[in-house]
Amino acid sequence: MEVTVTQENLSFALNNTSRIASSKAGLPILSNILLRTDSSRLLIAATNLEVASSHRIGAKVIKPGSITIPAKLLSDFIQNLPKEQITLKVANNKLHISAKNSSSTINGIADDEFPELPVIDDKKAISYNLSSDDFKHSVSQTVIAASSDSTRPILTGVYWHSFEKNLYLAATDGYRLTERRIVATKSDVEAVIPTSTLQEVLRTLRDDINEIEVLFDETQVTFRLAEVEITSRLIDGNFPDYRQLIPSSTESSFTVSRSELMRIIKIAGLFARESGGGITLNLDVDASRLTVHSIASEVGENSSEIEVKAKGQSGSVSLNSRYLTDALNAVTSDEVSFGFSGKLAPCVLEESIKDPNYKHIIMPLKS
Amino acid sequence: MEVTVTQENLSFALNNTSRIASSKAGLPILSNILLRTDSSRLLIAATNLEVASSHRIGAKVIKPGSITIPAKLLSDFIQNLPKEQITLKVANNKLHISAKNSSSTINGIADDEFPELPVIDDKKAISYNLSSDDFKHSVSQTVIAASSDSTRPILTGVYWHSFEKNLYLAATDGYRLTERRIVATKSDVEAVIPTSTLQEVLRTLRDDINEIEVLFDETQVTFRLAEVEITSRLIDGNFPDYRQLIPSSTESSFTVSRSELMRIIKIAGLFARESGGGITLNLDVDASRLTVHSIASEVGENSSEIEVKAKGQSGSVSLNSRYLTDALNAVTSDEVSFGFSGKLAPCVLEESIKDPNYKHIIMPLKS
Repeated sequence: MEVTVTQENLSFALNNTSRIASSKAGLPILSNILLRTDSSRLLIAATNLEVASSHRIGAKVIKPGSITIPAKLLSDFIQNLPKEQITLKVANNKLHISAKNSSSTINGIADDEFPELPVIDDKKAISYNLSSDDFKHSVSQTVIAASSDSTRPILTGVYWHSFEKNLYLAATDGYRLTERRIVATKSDVEAVIPTSTLQEVLRTLRDDINEIEVLFDETQVTFRLAEVEITSRLIDGNFPDYRQLIPSSTESSFTVSRSELMRIIKIAGLFARESGGGITLNLDVDASRLTVHSIASEVGENSSEIEVKAKGQSGSVSLNSRYLTDALNAVTSDEVSFGFSGKLAPCVLEESIKDPNYKHIIMPLKS
Repeated sequence: MEVTVTQENLSFALNNTSRIASSKAGLPILSNILLRTDSSRLLIAATNLEVASSHRIGAKVIKPGSITIPAKLLSDFIQNLPKEQITLKVANNKLHISAKNSSSTINGIADDEFPELPVIDDKKAISYNLSSDDFKHSVSQTVIAASSDSTRPILTGVYWHSFEKNLYLAATDGYRLTERRIVATKSDVEAVIPTSTLQEVLRTLRDDINEIEVLFDETQVTFRLAEVEITSRLIDGNFPDYRQLIPSSTESSFTVSRSELMRIIKIAGLFARESGGGITLNLDVDASRLTVHSIASEVGENSSEIEVKAKGQSGSVSLNSRYLTDALNAVTSDEVSFGFSGKLAPCVLEESIKDPNYKHIIMPLKS
């Protein structure tokens, strides 16, 4: 193999793929990156057997070929070269790298041992074209409720599914639940994508990429972002029927500035740190006032008030302050609406006007 | 105790003192912050028995008194209050904190158990007034060579001393050595200040503080930064006679762009990672060329060239790339001068023109 590429292109591709390459999976070859010529381009790819990321960058191919090279060294090295042309040449399982005033050799491994990269058959796949803003927003807002408990794998992913002609994303860890509508759709899909895959796609998304193509087959999903392709296995199993948990209406509700609510929840959370994070919200509808209270007998107690636009009945509910903080971080509107129905029913946080497509449900603490 | 203070002042003082408060020293009271009225001010102080930091902020004192309060909770809490007046009131070893729309109680401990804060007698002390820029620059440039090995405590500090009517700072871990002249002085001082104390002073330095007063007695040092006072014990013992290690001249030397040298040293260091960081500098005086070479038999090898202004003899020397990177980070000039005398003698890095007051010595690797 002998090719010439630009430092910028190679560095970007290595930066993304080297995150996936890791020897954790037990096979040393998985900590290598695959370099392989592909007509007039250079393929740069890595896999951890769950997710594979491949980039194709423009290259002047002098001699076709391939090799695999330790990901971290190659990526760190190329990032520190000046922004000029780089020549990559393979001989005797070594990669010779020449740049202006610099010449290096890195010992590699032939690509025979490298696992085959997963492929989705375009013709058989269900595909969606999403704006990258929609994608970013929807994924960020839902992944936060996914579980990190590997004993119930199905809850560690985000559920992509069609419902009443719309594409929805949902996630839940049993204590909270997020749901977001993305776009209208005619095709039917039902798939649970690992959180780590979605986060990898978010990290790879450059600002100049406006559209993402998402393709599903029975067991895999592929994200196409310009010259980058990320393919992942789906999580096996049936996602719980979460819709029954979303209350259609609530007995008590209030609308308030997101930043103000965030601030007093954070303060209450400090006092609740020693006692599992429990804080109590008390809504006084007549006085248009929300009081947030937390007690930790060892430490002390805190009580803050805030003026709100209140509706329905006065009442109170206890929540984990961290869940409410996460929920407030997930929305972007200046004002938020929060609804609850007594001490036991699920609470709903929504963007007050801007975005009726997002719902964040939090289960109360049964104290 | 009952006082009113502004959130900004209290938050700044707590932020600095809470870094020092910690229960690591074994006494639970040391993780508390002392609040005590002092005529028309409020004293906020913490100590870990090595270093004590005390702030005095303006306060409306309604009733004098004192208490100690868990540092982290108080600091986190006050930081999240709005920028308004805060009232602090002590009753039954509890601190009641009232701010706009917020009321909290934190359980405290009476200040009887709190260690006495160290004091330096101004009249008996040797004192220096340093510009905060000089202080910042000199401390940052020297501390990096201090040792982290507690078996030779004297090397874990920075040596402040007068020499030929100048105040110097120096530090060494046996592999490298930094020396910096700060100001002319008439008084004699010789003291080794713990690195951690100097870093604490650097962190506390606000941009609006232009001058620092440094006072030494036999066993302690105090730094006065406007309303803040940081007092620390000195390290016992005699600092080694380091001056004999600084070569008065070198056989080979070159001047080069700092950023360019940094870049190729970093690259060479990547290849040297597996082999203890050793890289070789090769100076060709006739060709005005520096070649940096590193080999790691398992991994590969690298060689980079750079054009330099060379003087003296051609030659080569092997160094730890990390030490050279640290040294290049410590200087601020665009160009640097590097001198060496064969493979065994100490090497000297200096700012090429700008700052003749700083010397960074690196011992070669005897390979």
